[in-house]
Amino acid sequence: MEDKYILLATCNDKVGITSLITNIIAEYGSNILHLDHFTEYDHAQDTEGKLFLRFEFEKATQLKEALENTLSQNDINFDIFDTSDKTKIALFVSKEDHAFNEVLLRVQRKEIPAEITCVVSNHENNRHFAESFNIPFYYVPSNNDKAIVEQNILDICAKHEVELIVLAKYMQILTDNFVSHYPNQIINIHHSFLPSFIGANPYKQAWERGVKLVGATSHFVTSDLDEGPIIDQDVTRINHRYNVQDLRKIGRHVESSVLAQAVEYHVQHKVIVNDGNKTIVFN
Amino acid sequence: MEDKYILLATCNDKVGITSLITNIIAEYGSNILHLDHFTEYDHAQDTEGKLFLRFEFEKATQLKEALENTLSQNDINFDIFDTSDKTKIALFVSKEDHAFNEVLLRVQRKEIPAEITCVVSNHENNRHFAESFNIPFYYVPSNNDKAIVEQNILDICAKHEVELIVLAKYMQILTDNFVSHYPNQIINIHHSFLPSFIGANPYKQAWERGVKLVGATSHFVTSDLDEGPIIDQDVTRINHRYNVQDLRKIGRHVESSVLAQAVEYHVQHKVIVNDGNKTIVFN
Amino acid sequence: MEDKYILLATCNDKVGITSLITNIIAEYGSNILHLDHFTEYDHAQDTEGKLFLRFEFEKATQLKEALENTLSQNDINFDIFDTSDKTKIALFVSKEDHAFNEVLLRVQRKEIPAEITCVVSNHENNRHFAESFNIPFYYVPSNNDKAIVEQNILDICAKHEVELIVLAKYMQILTDNFVSHYPNQIINIHHSFLPSFIGANPYKQAWERGVKLVGATSHFVTSDLDEGPIIDQDVTRINHRYNVQDLRKIGRHVESSVLAQAVEYHVQHKVIVNDGNKTIVFN
Amino acid sequence: MEDKYILLATCNDKVGITSLITNIIAEYGSNILHLDHFTEYDHAQDTEGKLFLRFEFEKATQLKEALENTLSQNDINFDIFDTSDKTKIALFVSKEDHAFNEVLLRVQRKEIPAEITCVVSNHENNRHFAESFNIPFYYVPSNNDKAIVEQNILDICAKHEVELIVLAKYMQILTDNFVSHYPNQIINIHHSFLPSFIGANPYKQAWERGVKLVGATSHFVTSDLDEGPIIDQDVTRINHRYNVQDLRKIGRHVESSVLAQAVEYHVQHKVIVNDGNKTIVFN
Repeated sequence: MEDKYILLATCNDKVGITSLITNIIAEYGSNILHLDHFTEYDHAQDTEGKLFLRFEFEKATQLKEALENTLSQNDINFDIFDTSDKTKIALFVSKEDHAFNEVLLRVQRKEIPAEITCVVSNHENNRHFAESFNIPFYYVPSNNDKAIVEQNILDICAKHEVELIVLAKYMQILTDNFVSHYPNQIINIHHSFLPSFIGANPYKQAWERGVKLVGATSHFVTSDLDEGPIIDQDVTRINHRYNVQDLRKIGRHVESSVLAQAVEYHVQHKVIVNDGNKTIVFN
Repeated sequence: MEDKYILLATCNDKVGITSLITNIIAEYGSNILHLDHFTEYDHAQDTEGKLFLRFEFEKATQLKEALENTLSQNDINFDIFDTSDKTKIALFVSKEDHAFNEVLLRVQRKEIPAEITCVVSNHENNRHFAESFNIPFYYVPSNNDKAIVEQNILDICAKHEVELIVLAKYMQILTDNFVSHYPNQIINIHHSFLPSFIGANPYKQAWERGVKLVGATSHFVTSDLDEGPIIDQDVTRINHRYNVQDLRKIGRHVESSVLAQAVEYHVQHKVIVNDGNKTIVFN
Repeated sequence: MEDKYILLATCNDKVGITSLITNIIAEYGSNILHLDHFTEYDHAQDTEGKLFLRFEFEKATQLKEALENTLSQNDINFDIFDTSDKTKIALFVSKEDHAFNEVLLRVQRKEIPAEITCVVSNHENNRHFAESFNIPFYYVPSNNDKAIVEQNILDICAKHEVELIVLAKYMQILTDNFVSHYPNQIINIHHSFLPSFIGANPYKQAWERGVKLVGATSHFVTSDLDEGPIIDQDVTRINHRYNVQDLRKIGRHVESSVLAQAVEYHVQHKVIVNDGNKTIVFN
Repeated sequence: MEDKYILLATCNDKVGITSLITNIIAEYGSNILHLDHFTEYDHAQDTEGKLFLRFEFEKATQLKEALENTLSQNDINFDIFDTSDKTKIALFVSKEDHAFNEVLLRVQRKEIPAEITCVVSNHENNRHFAESFNIPFYYVPSNNDKAIVEQNILDICAKHEVELIVLAKYMQILTDNFVSHYPNQIINIHHSFLPSFIGANPYKQAWERGVKLVGATSHFVTSDLDEGPIIDQDVTRINHRYNVQDLRKIGRHVESSVLAQAVEYHVQHKVIVNDGNKTIVFN
């Protein structure tokens, strides 16, 4: 990703919004490299509803300030990102390492343009892997008082100026208090094709129901467990020969790639949460 | 499919079953063309449990009788099919024609080796298509007393010696009484990736939940609506741009192919129902 | 598709193009419903190269004329479509009916927003299906002098004011002269994943090479056989059990859906040919 | 994989082969856990041709010897494997680490039941990763005389009693002499959907042709470059927005999983090479 600006903007749709923004960008001599535009259809009103925009464009002196002024004056929600600022990630993991390895390695290979600032785990077994890449590893056992545990973790995240928490098979439930510190900034991988098999042991549930595909779902964490806005999903074909153990094994590959994909989208500023329960993913 | 025998067999697994069957087939000079073998792992006992077998083999004089004798004496559940006997299908449809068209055309092209003996519908609009292929079409409106309606339909099926009922978007719920006449002989297409979005209007549910894939499920009909043994499933990728109408449209393609695939497996005698709620599909 | 305008535009990329167009649309009080924007990276120059745009926007009095004036004055190649004008299709087919049936039925169900004005075939067997939908069927045998045959077909297409020719398994090679009458207006389905297995009998070639997936490719027809710009491709998984006959059978489903998809994209004005050998598909 | 025997057998098909083998297994009190059977259709003769069998069955005293005797006397080619003997792998890699990481990590997680005995590379950059798992790493630069380089590598493989060489993006061409030491025991990953884009820089070729899917192919290495028997293939969807660099990036995920899958099949003894240019994969 070369050095440029990304603008995410949301507002009620009306004539002239795109024109307004493109005019400012052109005025400052910046070229638009990419532009995504989505007008949500309003089923209730049977009319267009909300407008979602994403621009990639060249940097130019004073352009950012000009955009900020105009967009603020026009009641448009927005964020402007400079792609030279990499998103600071904290990677949370328990014992299972597959999703953790995948995200970490994709960041190392610069496939995911981000920075992993620290790893937090309630087990020691992934320390070696993290430290072999010179990433600080924090062992925070989960058998303490939950309030204390979470405060420790919040302190670690604060110290590393974390902007995104990635739950790479972190098998602990976070409290509403914790989640409220990182709204739409915690991404989890659930090991089923949601909303199927909510709750514990989804692969056992899948085996018992006799489904012919198993999947995984990456989503933002909200106070409603397994109900957060879905970012990405995928499935893989199985058959009657797969026992529960086999489902777990093949499911790992889907979990790893679906989580890594969601993180990539997020740090590329391609994801907007719509109305609290859905995502726009400009991919 | 050339002219041959297909044997489906199920029993508790023990040493020597496959040997027993292959010996008889060899003894009568018949060559095995295809052989599927599945030993189900018994999670409860942590041991092998039930054995499922499917053989395709050449015809030979007296072979069928010899197999029937031996298998019966050994407590093996079995069916022997002659591939020259095509399965007799009744195709049920309401207004929407896509799944109906797909199954009918695949049978016409001999991609599905079966015979469509009749079409039953609670609407008139698909009469023309059925009759253009010289297939008898029965209009049975659903606004009568349900017992009478179903008796009419049972009479039609009996008259045509129907062996398989395919619900190709037949939007009527069948009573337990009706279903009991055709155990594991009624295949339905549900317009979601079960067990997600059980019940009415699954595409609206999918849109509201913001999933990133929509799917379809073909299953045997049992007295438990949407809970019958799953035969096949597939999904297709969507994104935030799809409104409910778009989901319905793209979903049709998945519905059609998943239903046609299930019918094809069934009439090729590749499907065995296991314990009432799952299928073995030897594909 | 509701009643609106679609603009496709192409030019060398420079600052201000999108601004220019959105300003006119806003000036006439029209709301943009959808906007796609693609700046092609120029590998040779290591810089942005050409710009491709697609707008969907509300109709407004005089808007079309205003756009036409401005775009012409600014050296921008463009087309403006009114979605109430359905594309007029001629469907060409030989003996095999699967792709022909699929395209025809999707148009009938309004999944593909177009009009099939006529069917042209060198065989009689698909007459019945076409005529059962009241679509004129022209039998043009191919065992005549090729120049005469093609002139007959051109006359039929002219009479029906055909805008798009769909070769739904039309197993005749069209001359350069014929193709020159419909530049980027003839869509073919090739029964392989191009550029694999160019030429005759691709399924036999695929079987001999032992590939694990077979596919199909829809492309615009140019004077270079099998080399035209690719619109869509898909594959399906096979294994060693599939003989050549089985590959042909399973391949039909991919061929049908890949052709229908390409036709749908085209008549929705989502396809732009880039430099004669590639497509932009705004899907 | 529990402790059991796996038998792979091949012969000309005739009546009684499966009976012969199952009888011996039953005689020694062993239960068959899994059985795959494939009769290849002979297109030339229009008849059944060769028979391929794979059995998984319980161990029993003297059973292996009994099978060896009988199969040898009946002109059946076979191998019997004890699943407690893990296949000894040498992993070859150049600079790019993705496929190397994937195979190594899946073996570490016991998803692939094998042992990586050593890593061979013409670059130093992957030493750290290999050694962090205590796997011996051999740096064999490729800028020496090829005969000397290959002899060095052969010595390393001999020392580690290597049974399978995995080329995880090892960008050196092996000589016929080298390959002849490991017939059907060297697995390569080619970064295209073969036979498309044979030769150098397949992603550039794919970009220039404008395909809509890119893929990868794992195959046994033979003296014919890019022509060895294909074990597995997969593809991923792309569009006009992907430049060559993007194709390389997304292609890595397919390469990694297709290579790891092939290695898994091979060490599970599921792959038989048929006639030198195709594979049977009993998956």
